[in-house]
Amino acid sequence: MAEYSIGVDLGGTNLRVAAIDRDGRMMQKIASSTDLTNGPEAVVADMAAAIEALRATLGTHSLHGIGVAVPGFIRLKEGVIAGSNNLAVLEGFPMRDALQRKLGTPVILENDANAAAMGEKWIGAGRDVNDLVLITLGTGVGGGIIADGKIVHGYLGMAGEVGHITVVPNGNPCGCGNRGCLEKHASATAIAALAFLIGLGDVTSEQVYTLAKAGDERALAVFDHMGRALGIALAAMVNTFNFPLYLISGGPLPAWDVFSIPMLDEVSKRSFTFRASKTVIARAELGSEAGLFGAAYLPWGYETNYVARS
Amino acid sequence: MAEYSIGVDLGGTNLRVAAIDRDGRMMQKIASSTDLTNGPEAVVADMAAAIEALRATLGTHSLHGIGVAVPGFIRLKEGVIAGSNNLAVLEGFPMRDALQRKLGTPVILENDANAAAMGEKWIGAGRDVNDLVLITLGTGVGGGIIADGKIVHGYLGMAGEVGHITVVPNGNPCGCGNRGCLEKHASATAIAALAFLIGLGDVTSEQVYTLAKAGDERALAVFDHMGRALGIALAAMVNTFNFPLYLISGGPLPAWDVFSIPMLDEVSKRSFTFRASKTVIARAELGSEAGLFGAAYLPWGYETNYVARS
Repeated sequence: MAEYSIGVDLGGTNLRVAAIDRDGRMMQKIASSTDLTNGPEAVVADMAAAIEALRATLGTHSLHGIGVAVPGFIRLKEGVIAGSNNLAVLEGFPMRDALQRKLGTPVILENDANAAAMGEKWIGAGRDVNDLVLITLGTGVGGGIIADGKIVHGYLGMAGEVGHITVVPNGNPCGCGNRGCLEKHASATAIAALAFLIGLGDVTSEQVYTLAKAGDERALAVFDHMGRALGIALAAMVNTFNFPLYLISGGPLPAWDVFSIPMLDEVSKRSFTFRASKTVIARAELGSEAGLFGAAYLPWGYETNYVARS
Repeated sequence: MAEYSIGVDLGGTNLRVAAIDRDGRMMQKIASSTDLTNGPEAVVADMAAAIEALRATLGTHSLHGIGVAVPGFIRLKEGVIAGSNNLAVLEGFPMRDALQRKLGTPVILENDANAAAMGEKWIGAGRDVNDLVLITLGTGVGGGIIADGKIVHGYLGMAGEVGHITVVPNGNPCGCGNRGCLEKHASATAIAALAFLIGLGDVTSEQVYTLAKAGDERALAVFDHMGRALGIALAAMVNTFNFPLYLISGGPLPAWDVFSIPMLDEVSKRSFTFRASKTVIARAELGSEAGLFGAAYLPWGYETNYVARS
């Protein structure tokens, strides 16, 4: 049996567990929903049961390791979720050690946006580079940064919060206390909220896109605003990092043809580095499974990403 | 004789060359002015003459290496200044190899903002951390990023251009083609320009500070604007990097007591990471000699910063 790894993507709604081989081929996947009603131990038991099921089928011998991606800040050394909007019930719980004890094998706990960026770097749109930023547009806007092939964690595991970069100094109020955060102007939620404000009614970001495709001026204005907001944040990143690649992912990605035009126009205006180089801003390739793939990759990237460096 | 290194800081106006020992003690310094009128080879000859003078006094045997800091984008592999506003005459010139040939010893060429950040990390305000950003306020606003103890160069050596982060989407026009760049709202030049606009006449940033200290409302308003602009950019960096330390340097630093209040207020409002952590934003310590110290350090940091990594 070829060596494989197990990735877990524990979201606020969905729990997905997959066995993936060294070449990034998905061998088996178990998709279920996250049940938070019975507390942290029950969540660990649900994850462990799915992992056990895969391990029973594929064999313990060839299992290289287990990676778990969760939405929230991780205290890496302790393997604890320090803070999470979507998994508040798990805050402060020693998730990694509880799962390790139950399974009798090492587990790596990682932030989901970081795992997704690593997934894209491994077998997605970032497979040819060593440095990239992945921006995921969802309820909020998440970010994962890979520099020199390694996840940038920051000293408290809070790096990559690009959703809270200010793009409009007196813009829309954000739950974080700021005004004009990127995620209040460019997330899927923001697209729907902007559409509501502009008189399109109670629509989803998908519906706004359908309207935009049909030529609706107001829907196009929403994507113009959203694309330009994203462009301002991207220009800041291009100027700061000078990475070769920036990837966009998430629900609004199908609207790329609409929002990427104002987005790239704004980046081009606001970054001479972008104009002077072949910096690429492109669509991510793994969709909502980037975090699952990235989580599975983590055990193979353990030395690089988690062992103390120079 | 103790081991030493020679650092060169080649600016648009000043040429400084210093011998510095492994503990960061300056052993000898030669300060002169940059003469660009006779072309690149003459500039190289001036640098080489100063280096030779130090080498003659201190001995060739104990010389560990030579680092040269210049304002501009460096193509690291070739040792060429790809672009420079202040040293346009040197663009495209193979500076490193010309100097190496003249001296018969290896030379490292580096961007001056990167060298300054490395200087602060070595023996300045950043000596206790491995990750920092140094922002230098001058004619423009420069940036140097140290991550995991290493200079972040970006794939074309263009990283750290934080002076061109957009802080006011429809703000002051910048020579780079953008509007509202940080450096058009927070550099020494911007402070003087804002003071002129607000009716303070043709004053320097130092004079604006003197007025602010005396309680002049318009001068205080200038520093309020400048501090808030800096705060918006800093918040973006804190949210993105989650580094423990961000340093401010440059001419307006004496006005810290005035501008740091609105600056920190803005960072605090715009970054929950800042509020939730002990992230430090502080004054750099090496002043205008940070680049000189950093340049001298480069030969000791060669393996870490320039040899191909994983």
